Amino acid sequence: MEYTSQLRVRYAHTDAMGIVYHGNYYEYFEAARVELMRHAGLNYTELVEAGYYMPLIESHCEYKKPAKFDDLLDITCKMVYDGALRVKLLYKIHCNGILICTGHTVHVFTTVAENKIVKPPKLFLDYFKESA
Amino acid sequence: MEYTSQLRVRYAHTDAMGIVYHGNYYEYFEAARVELMRHAGLNYTELVEAGYYMPLIESHCEYKKPAKFDDLLDITCKMVYDGALRVKLLYKIHCNGILICTGHTVHVFTTVAENKIVKPPKLFLDYFKESA
Amino acid sequence: MEYTSQLRVRYAHTDAMGIVYHGNYYEYFEAARVELMRHAGLNYTELVEAGYYMPLIESHCEYKKPAKFDDLLDITCKMVYDGALRVKLLYKIHCNGILICTGHTVHVFTTVAENKIVKPPKLFLDYFKESA
Amino acid sequence: MEYTSQLRVRYAHTDAMGIVYHGNYYEYFEAARVELMRHAGLNYTELVEAGYYMPLIESHCEYKKPAKFDDLLDITCKMVYDGALRVKLLYKIHCNGILICTGHTVHVFTTVAENKIVKPPKLFLDYFKESA
Repeated sequence: MEYTSQLRVRYAHTDAMGIVYHGNYYEYFEAARVELMRHAGLNYTELVEAGYYMPLIESHCEYKKPAKFDDLLDITCKMVYDGALRVKLLYKIHCNGILICTGHTVHVFTTVAENKIVKPPKLFLDYFKESA
Repeated sequence: MEYTSQLRVRYAHTDAMGIVYHGNYYEYFEAARVELMRHAGLNYTELVEAGYYMPLIESHCEYKKPAKFDDLLDITCKMVYDGALRVKLLYKIHCNGILICTGHTVHVFTTVAENKIVKPPKLFLDYFKESA
Repeated sequence: MEYTSQLRVRYAHTDAMGIVYHGNYYEYFEAARVELMRHAGLNYTELVEAGYYMPLIESHCEYKKPAKFDDLLDITCKMVYDGALRVKLLYKIHCNGILICTGHTVHVFTTVAENKIVKPPKLFLDYFKESA
Repeated sequence: MEYTSQLRVRYAHTDAMGIVYHGNYYEYFEAARVELMRHAGLNYTELVEAGYYMPLIESHCEYKKPAKFDDLLDITCKMVYDGALRVKLLYKIHCNGILICTGHTVHVFTTVAENKIVKPPKLFLDYFKESA
């Protein structure tokens, strides 16, 4: 389950070094994660309507080359799920074929109602199996 | 009802021109608005717990001089309320006595439950009268 | 000189009211402004390489209806230039045909080298005339 | 070399789950890092004026409990330097004694002029030795 989406760097995301502020790559990871899920047929809003959130318990990024304003980034996002409570997503961002950064996020599922960690819901598992 | 609070510019808020990105001043206005209300004895979280939000219906900023990374900003926030549905807040940001920008925001009160515009709640009016 | 571009609301841009944080619309205005200029054949990076910035001196937004996570927004951006020092851009954001907000920004041109306000450079005027 | 600073969560940093958006903790880490350096007598702006940047090559965060709007966070930042090219900073964020998250960032030094990775400059080493 892997998908590559694109986005363009906004001026708002650059910093005084003239490059994308390191923390903003996590927003790009989010955009890629949402597109991967949409591509698999599972909108994050459906998951929320079904009563589940997918909060992060870990985020990580290694910066190789800086991205700049107006750069068109290719973000490859891959979901790894081994049947446990956690879902891992791996990211690679390229710009014109040059590797900008790699990273990952780890998520759990919680109930919207009680904010309790639960097993991945059937809604998620069904889509994941079909798409894997 | 006026109050001046301080905050320091983070690198995250600068852009590739080496100055604070224009959109970020609205976050500084928010910080000053929250501090003004706290100073008057009214925490925004109390208002939410009482069932009200204070969403914006207008925001405006005029930029005079740029602020930069690590600048310590003085933000003066003044609340103007004429008894109608709307509350207006006026802002002035200075850095070392130099005017950086001026602006305003206009807010209404809505119910958390039904997202309906309502008159300013008693909780707000009481604090406003005492502080004005 | 008018152009409509699209963008999708990221989770990062929502706030605890479950809607897009008011300050983030200015980032959407920026995205639309850059696309309008690109559509006219004028990349903002070219302008910078030619030695000019286009900083804001004013920003304004009126909020009609909230946008939410994953909403696909249509942003119409129109440039108005009357031959003076200032350039005005007007914005309208719709979601599924519903008006979300309207706003404007006012810009001047400054030199990258000396940070001095100057007349709109020929590079800008040429593209503007062709596209108008 | 360790220092604890405080900051308050702004509404702008919350998301539709009603908690601080995960990516924003990196901005809080930055604020704590800058205050640690200031406490040691080394302003980041001095470092830039001396011709050096301190870009990140890695960032990492593990989320334990969510922080919310208006929470007052204590951020402990510790600098670890073993004499090599890289500087590591460790972070712990608490709210009312409860651990919110832990994380780290890894930095190198680059020249502003040529964007080349260089050894930590004397300016940095002198302050680090005095403060360690």
